[in-house]
Amino acid sequence: MATTIEKARQARGASLELAKTSADEKDRALLALAKVLWDRKGEILEANARDCEESKDEIGEALYKRLQLNEEKVEAMVEGVKSVVKLKDPVGETTYAIELDIDLELYKITVPIGVIGAIFESRPNVVVDVGALCLKSGNAVMMKGGSEARHTNRMLYGLMKAATEESGMPEGWIQLVESREEVTEMLELDEYISLLVPRGSNEFVKYIKENTRIPVLGHASGVCHVYVDGEADMEKALRIAYDAKCQYPAVCNAMETLLVDERIVGEFLPRIWEEYRKAGVTAKGDEKACKVLGDIQKACDIDWSTEYNDLVVNVRTVNGVDEAIENINRYGSAHTDAIVTEDEYTARKFIDSVDSSSVMWNASTRFSDGYRYGLGAEIGISTNKIHARGPVGMEGLVIHKWILKGDGHIVEDYRKKKFTHRKLKKRWE
Amino acid sequence: MATTIEKARQARGASLELAKTSADEKDRALLALAKVLWDRKGEILEANARDCEESKDEIGEALYKRLQLNEEKVEAMVEGVKSVVKLKDPVGETTYAIELDIDLELYKITVPIGVIGAIFESRPNVVVDVGALCLKSGNAVMMKGGSEARHTNRMLYGLMKAATEESGMPEGWIQLVESREEVTEMLELDEYISLLVPRGSNEFVKYIKENTRIPVLGHASGVCHVYVDGEADMEKALRIAYDAKCQYPAVCNAMETLLVDERIVGEFLPRIWEEYRKAGVTAKGDEKACKVLGDIQKACDIDWSTEYNDLVVNVRTVNGVDEAIENINRYGSAHTDAIVTEDEYTARKFIDSVDSSSVMWNASTRFSDGYRYGLGAEIGISTNKIHARGPVGMEGLVIHKWILKGDGHIVEDYRKKKFTHRKLKKRWE
Repeated sequence: MATTIEKARQARGASLELAKTSADEKDRALLALAKVLWDRKGEILEANARDCEESKDEIGEALYKRLQLNEEKVEAMVEGVKSVVKLKDPVGETTYAIELDIDLELYKITVPIGVIGAIFESRPNVVVDVGALCLKSGNAVMMKGGSEARHTNRMLYGLMKAATEESGMPEGWIQLVESREEVTEMLELDEYISLLVPRGSNEFVKYIKENTRIPVLGHASGVCHVYVDGEADMEKALRIAYDAKCQYPAVCNAMETLLVDERIVGEFLPRIWEEYRKAGVTAKGDEKACKVLGDIQKACDIDWSTEYNDLVVNVRTVNGVDEAIENINRYGSAHTDAIVTEDEYTARKFIDSVDSSSVMWNASTRFSDGYRYGLGAEIGISTNKIHARGPVGMEGLVIHKWILKGDGHIVEDYRKKKFTHRKLKKRWE
Repeated sequence: MATTIEKARQARGASLELAKTSADEKDRALLALAKVLWDRKGEILEANARDCEESKDEIGEALYKRLQLNEEKVEAMVEGVKSVVKLKDPVGETTYAIELDIDLELYKITVPIGVIGAIFESRPNVVVDVGALCLKSGNAVMMKGGSEARHTNRMLYGLMKAATEESGMPEGWIQLVESREEVTEMLELDEYISLLVPRGSNEFVKYIKENTRIPVLGHASGVCHVYVDGEADMEKALRIAYDAKCQYPAVCNAMETLLVDERIVGEFLPRIWEEYRKAGVTAKGDEKACKVLGDIQKACDIDWSTEYNDLVVNVRTVNGVDEAIENINRYGSAHTDAIVTEDEYTARKFIDSVDSSSVMWNASTRFSDGYRYGLGAEIGISTNKIHARGPVGMEGLVIHKWILKGDGHIVEDYRKKKFTHRKLKKRWE
């Protein structure tokens, strides 16, 4: 079996070929993959049943549910691949074109990044999603899935590799990595791997970020806030605060801390608390919130920056929007934060001042997602301050290359000559 | 005096304010700075004279020349600041706008990155250039200049801080860092600093990259190639190979290795070698090159990936464009590589296959530069595969933020409802 570095070298070699592959060729390979996944769903489900059997005593119910596949989920995988086919090829677009001088033309075009390291905990569908996105964007990929899904991952990897390589994709563009040791080795391979996309728990992503020099796209935590302003419409505030916490509490864009303007705390807090209680939410509050609600726990400092991913909410009263902004920029994780207010001046202040990847005005934090944002598919959600931020679609998997076409031009001549720097309205073709 | 972490905290605080500052306000501050630099050029030159006096025995001639300022260089600084004023404010642009549903509108707008750590060796003008670029793009900056320029840097920093803060820029947006210990501390401050821009020697940039978790924008080395194809126009090849090596050998976009197609090695190599010899260039060659030229040294493996930054050139014969591509992707640093050929098919193969930030066709590698590329000003040249690649202008100092404006919208409703995902032709204002 190939060592991790051999896999990385193969992937790097394949990535150089893949970068030159046309949209049509990539789409054909993806359609072949969609067909094979559907044709061989029986084997996929069989492999998955083995995983479920082997790990049922070791993992919790939530994880088990995410691990378990059925025909419907395989269909969703197939649909996912087909939807990637429909997305525009992000490679080869001219994003800047300028004439530097007569017959000296400069083009900036999009190109694939190279080799992507995709490391996730559980959820076998992600293997197919991310594989398809990498292929469409012309990137080779090294994949490590959750170990409880190893039979499923191996099966999916085998099908992906065979279907796409038989359709002419370069050999070795997709690589499977299985052990923790291999992941540790991957983190060292900055010579071959240009971007890591980890998906999993906070600790997991944090570990990756702290142990590699390869750039990491993703987020370690999602400590999202909803701030209910004194000028909020009460009904909207109730809907949004409920949806943000309760619609799906286990995900990164769910709210962890509810900030309530002092001016309306007496009116709003008891009403949302009634709904939260019915949903089984427990709360931790600051002094005022505890006073208003009576029977809740007092929050300690670390709670304000904790991602519960559960039916737990921090409640804090603030003296207006400025204090809300200060709290969010201090305790938040710059993921997604919302304001509920009818006052436009206050909303704009919040939007301009909150330093988060997504800022919502009168909408739930739960909208922060690549599919909902219309990106077609999502690689992940990034809280980075460079490259890509917020929900990231395929644009996060490309970078650019500069092409300068001359006719024997040399720099020495431009000690006297002037550049024309005339913008061109044409594409590199 | 403030500790490094206090400086970083101040810069972070100021960056949140600066992000909200209008283009007009920033431009006014830059014009005030331009005026002050010119009005107080006497003091700047005095401080610089002290640096020159103190370090003249410690540094080489080249470094001394770069350190030394005169009235002309101060004028260039002033012009540099004025040219940044003329650049379009890169902040607040809407790059994507889409309706998710009635009254639910999503905008993606450009925002500053936050706090930039700018660490350079020598050349005091860079302090002003980079400071102006950071201010215009709404970023706070922590600067560390070369220690041999410490009096000049301190003077420039003092003038920049006073002129801009008096014009209303947030206090502490610019911070000076002076000692090596402070730089080491800076590298740890990923909580406050979002991007590092180092400029200096290979070892210096490499050291930075290897000792921080903060993303680094830049390049460690520039091992650039010129490939002279069998179908090259001889005169163009001679001009380009000469310019790429000799026009300014000390810089990153100068050529280090000349690749020559076997088909024309006998015709081309003796001619370029005659010119190189006149310019004082020494060569290291592969077996064939040594045979053709007779009196040159044989290159060893490490030479092919060495950046000389000097009048030294590696010469290698290759069997056509494929071998040239292979050599470049193997030994190069993905900075800038050129092909000289009249054959379009060969040129396109080279352009598509060479994995470098800039690829030149019949033009010198020396064109790889932000000013020449028409970017207005340059933060640096990046060989990264993410965020920004090649010569980087102000677009490398911004990222985006997503703004979702709703009217009480919650995700739960979209379990049944469909998104409209209708592209909007409007900007966030």
